[in-house]
This record gives sequence, structure tokens and C-alpha cells, in this order.
Amino acid sequence: MTGMLPLAATLDALDTPALLLDPVKLDRNVARLATRLAALGVPLRPHVKTAKSIPVIARALVGQPGGVTVSTLKEAEECFRAGLTDILYAVGIAPQKLKRVASLRARGADVTVIVDSIAAAQAVRAQGEIPALIEIDSDGHRAGVHPDSALLLDIGRILGSRLRGVMTHAGESYHSLTDDAKRQMAEQERAAAVRAAEHLREAGLPCATVSVGSTPTAMFAEDLRGVTEVRAGVHMFMDLVMAGLGVCAVDDIAISVLATVIGHQPEKGWIITDAGWMALSRDRGTSAQPLDQGYGLVCDRGGRPIQGLFVQGANQEHGMIASRESNLLQHAYPLGTLLRILPNHACATAAQYAGYDVLGDEERVIARWPRFGGW
Amino acid sequence: MTGMLPLAATLDALDTPALLLDPVKLDRNVARLATRLAALGVPLRPHVKTAKSIPVIARALVGQPGGVTVSTLKEAEECFRAGLTDILYAVGIAPQKLKRVASLRARGADVTVIVDSIAAAQAVRAQGEIPALIEIDSDGHRAGVHPDSALLLDIGRILGSRLRGVMTHAGESYHSLTDDAKRQMAEQERAAAVRAAEHLREAGLPCATVSVGSTPTAMFAEDLRGVTEVRAGVHMFMDLVMAGLGVCAVDDIAISVLATVIGHQPEKGWIITDAGWMALSRDRGTSAQPLDQGYGLVCDRGGRPIQGLFVQGANQEHGMIASRESNLLQHAYPLGTLLRILPNHACATAAQYAGYDVLGDEERVIARWPRFGGW
Repeated sequence: MTGMLPLAATLDALDTPALLLDPVKLDRNVARLATRLAALGVPLRPHVKTAKSIPVIARALVGQPGGVTVSTLKEAEECFRAGLTDILYAVGIAPQKLKRVASLRARGADVTVIVDSIAAAQAVRAQGEIPALIEIDSDGHRAGVHPDSALLLDIGRILGSRLRGVMTHAGESYHSLTDDAKRQMAEQERAAAVRAAEHLREAGLPCATVSVGSTPTAMFAEDLRGVTEVRAGVHMFMDLVMAGLGVCAVDDIAISVLATVIGHQPEKGWIITDAGWMALSRDRGTSAQPLDQGYGLVCDRGGRPIQGLFVQGANQEHGMIASRESNLLQHAYPLGTLLRILPNHACATAAQYAGYDVLGDEERVIARWPRFGGW
Repeated sequence: MTGMLPLAATLDALDTPALLLDPVKLDRNVARLATRLAALGVPLRPHVKTAKSIPVIARALVGQPGGVTVSTLKEAEECFRAGLTDILYAVGIAPQKLKRVASLRARGADVTVIVDSIAAAQAVRAQGEIPALIEIDSDGHRAGVHPDSALLLDIGRILGSRLRGVMTHAGESYHSLTDDAKRQMAEQERAAAVRAAEHLREAGLPCATVSVGSTPTAMFAEDLRGVTEVRAGVHMFMDLVMAGLGVCAVDDIAISVLATVIGHQPEKGWIITDAGWMALSRDRGTSAQPLDQGYGLVCDRGGRPIQGLFVQGANQEHGMIASRESNLLQHAYPLGTLLRILPNHACATAAQYAGYDVLGDEERVIARWPRFGGW
């Protein structure tokens, strides 16, 4: 329905639930990280996986060289279709996917893959001239090879001229509650990647690229010597997980879910809206943080958080809003009231939608920016 | 890419992750519930929210009168476009949505809404002649009015001739671990709806419809006297939550996510695949059950569960598979191996996909059935 919106419709014209995007906050978030990284002398290769939307990525690329990071080949294909050619596919490559990568490269996309095993390096070599980075494990979080392992050099030798460098992602930074912990994690991420690069160079192997990043480490790094690029995606929108980590303020969160009150359960103290987990995602990323935000923090239609209100529970198309305080005035939110929910995890919530309703002044919807999904 | 599949391609031709559907299991699941309900003399009004796919709903309607249940107006519109006209929109109606309901009705769809408040009943009356059921709270789970409350009759009187009956959903049945508990919950659901219907009729109000249902109560009800229809959706696919509740066997689960091995972390005992939470959803519905299945149970490419293997962790595009046993032979699953993951929650996992790759004999993909999403 929103595809047929008149220009400059207000929020009342939207079918709910809908995904709202505040472009002023988006630009502010993008500028904040860009300024930090510029001071450290390192460019950003923004990650497409959070927004999956070309107009958002275009804003995230302002002042940057133009390379992007993707988590799926679908993202790579969509970026290439939009004219972006420098693409890092930052998920370990399966041999079966190399043909699709080669096809993109044959059409002019400079796609680089990542590997962390002998088998993957051999598959890349067998496919021809696809360039690759070696994934480094800097924090025991997920994938990658240890920077000091013999495996690193073995993989490098198999790749030979295809080797472009190293990359790492300190996903454990999502558990770094204090600023000191985030700074330490940023240094740990940097040091692991740089050390791996040095080992490769000492062995006579090429290592032009040293790529690191996660939103918390990118926002807290104080020194990026030896690093050639930083990757981040959530920084564009921010979310409650990032706010809970102290990476941003709640007021920085650029996306929210517009919901309509569809009922009340006075005995339980609930306001029920039409934003259930289909609208918010099942992500409960704040459940492990000191302040569990349930399925999201509740704001008024203007985007101002309402003291104490959060989404305590969610069914598929029902969100149960409760108050952390005792005196919730349910009837201050009568049937039909519009509310906005700030998400736990921007990547997961945005993935539930086909596009963003972009906000202008006075609650006007000034554009609809499409998203792509799938693989 | 799958849109361009040659006829009768094998699993190897699919880009992973992909959502597979076994139509033999689907039909068996549909028949099992149909047989149970036929013995109790009550028809099924299948819920569209799980499958969101017309070919699936067509199979779920075999032998039934043809009415469907929906959780969004998008589902209602898609069903109507496919020729289904008897539609119950089983989420409390927001006043703003009544125009869209009226528009569907004006085009020939017999859409019924549900209400559980004076305000909603007044909004329905103000809109004209949209029929409504009163939602009954049979278990304190979510929404609805108590069957013995004065509010029930007040709402009924406001609706007047628009009143079609009552409906309830015993969502608490998802916590009924024993068969006795499920049978009791089914009776509690039935009794609440029938009692509410009796109160309305005693007050001289019309109450032709008495609608109940959830997959666990539908599968365990032993007596449905006074009930005119049952609603269920998950029963078509089943999932690990239903298996954990004893509502089905693991072998009944009709959908699975096809994944490719993209790496190993020998020290952690992990096999890493390309099915992360974007492919599986963030649903952790088995975490509250005696056997926590993580993000899903791992099967070989033929769909046979592999003893002890489950998805222990998930990032956006990474699934970390571990073994409950000590002797995981990681290298029995080399890079590029295809695996299939059974989902915790069919509704949530299926929602991550644009369609189903339908399996025939010998791992052949014989059709692609599209899904609809959004609101």
C-alpha cells in the first residue's frame, strides 16, 4: 500500500507495521564514524548487510573510496547493478559459489572472497583468478585462522598471486560493556590483523589489504596503524544493542517500527499493538545486557521514548507493551494510537521489511527506499 | 537464481541457503489433523500465517469448507486474489484498518474481523456492516475478553447484527508439555468459547460461529461440542517446538533449510555453514523446552537427522554447528557439504524466504511455490 502513498503523506497514511527511517540521524551516524576514521587515516568499506538498500549505502559512502562489504552474493549482485564495483564478500566462500563470483567478475565487478582453510584456498585457485583475503580469528568468536599459525602461510602459498591480504571481525566486541573493553577489543582486532599481514609479507607473500571492523571496535579504535580499511554496517542505523553497549545514545537510533494500538489488557497492564515479532524480528540481543529491552523500546509517534514503556512480549502479529513502572496509564494510549518501537538489532528488524519509509519534517514521509533480501 | 532452475534440478543446483518443502509430509500432516477433526465433526479454517503461500493453503483446504484465517490484511488480499472469499482476520482490528477491510468486502471478500473492546466494537459499527467475532481470553495468554465478563455482552450489543460469534486461541498450549496438559488446554479453550457463546445467546444476541484453535489443542482435542470450526497453521509444516511438545515426530517436519558447509573450527568443534539467523530466523522457541535445539537440528542432505548435531550459534550469515556428543567427526562434513536444518518455529523460519523449493523423489526440486510477506 505504501507504494501508492501521495507525496509528503503523514504517518497516518501508512499501513502499520511499517519501518521508518530518519535520514538526519542516518547522516549524523555516518558522519560520526567517518570523522573518527578520517582522524585515524583509514577509509571505511561500509557493510551492506544491515541496510540492504542502495540509497542508504550511497549515503554511507559519502567521502569514502567506494568499496563495499557484503554478506551474500545477492547483495554483491545488487550493489554491482547499482554501479558499485569494489566488493568484498566477507563470509567464508563455499566452492559452489565461486562460479557466481566468477560470473560477476566477468561482467566487471571486482569481487574479493575470503578463505580460512586449505580446502577453500584450493577451490579458489581451481576457479581461476578470483582474489581472496585470508580471514583471521582475532577473538575466538566465529571463523578464521590464528594469526600466528602455520596454516596462515600454507593458505597464502596456495593462493599465491590471488592473495590480496587479510581481514578480521572482532564479533566479541558485542559483549564489551565498558569503553575500556571496547578500546582493548579494537586494539586486539588491529594487532591480530597486522601481525598476520607481517607474517605473510615476511614469507614473501603479497598483503596489500589489512581489513578490520565491527561497529563497536570501529567507533572505539584509538590507533589503526597498519590497517588499510575498516568495515562496519550497524553504525548507519544504530540500535538498542549498540546503545546498551555505550556505542551510541538511544537518540541516535535512525530506524523504528511504526505500530498501531489494537487492544488493552488492563489486568495485565498491557497495551497490545500490531507490531509482533514479524515486525520487530525475534532478536533479543539486549537480553544478555544489563538492561533487557524486551522486543524494543516504545516511543511516541514523534520518536520520543515514553518513560518506562517497552515491548515485553511478542507473538507473530501482536506486541505486548508493558511498563517498568507501576502506574502505566493505558488509556493515555487508546485504540488506534500510533507508537514507534526502537529495535534491539537493526540488521534483524530491517530484514523483516521490503523497504524504508523515509521521514521528513513534521512526520511527513518523503520517500520510500527499497530493500533487497534473499541470497 | 532458483527462479531459473531447470525442471527437476537436484539440490546441488540450488543457491544456499534455500527453504525446502517436502509435499509428502505436508499432505500427511494436513490429513492427520483433518482425520482427527472429521471424527469430532468440526471443519478446519486453516491459518495462512505459517505458509503464506497459495499452493500450500490449497492443500491444507482439501476436504474443508474453504474458509481461511489470516494474521494480516496482506494475507487477506492475497487469498482473495487467489479466489478464497471466506476470510477471518484473527488479529484485533485497528480502526484505521477498517477501510481496507471494507474495500476487500466491496470487491466480494467476506472478511470478518475480531474485537475485544468497546472502542473496537464502536469503530466497527461506525464503518458500516463489517461482521465481527468477539475475541475470548481462554488462557490469559494474550488478548480477548473473559467469557463471563459483562464486557462481553456490552460489546455484543454494540455490534448488534454485525456479531457473527466468538473466537479464542489458547496460545498457552505451547507450554503444555504432557499430553494430559494439551488435552486439558483443548478443553479449557473449548469451554471458554462455548460458555461465551451461551452468554451471548442467552442475551438474545446472534452467535453462529464458535471458533477455537492452536496446533497443540487442535491435535489433542477429544471433544469439540459446541465448536463450529477449528483454526491451525503450524500443523501443515510442524517444527521442533511442536516435536518438543510431543505434538508431532521430528520426522513429520515438512520444511528444512538447505545449507552449505563453509568452514570448520576444529578447536571449538564447530562446522560452520551459510545458514545463519537470516536463514533460520532468530526464533529460539525450544530454549524453554527440556531439549534446547539451539537454532535447529542438523540433517544430512536426504533429510535424515545426524545423531547429536545441532546449530549451537548463529550470526547473520553463519551457523555454528556443534555436537552434543564428544566425538564429532568434522571432516565427515567437508567444505561444500550440503546439510539440512530443521527449524525451531516454522512460521518464523519460513518468513525469511521468498518461496519454497518443493522436493520430489531423489532430491529433485519439482516446483517453486512463492510466498508473500509484508502487511
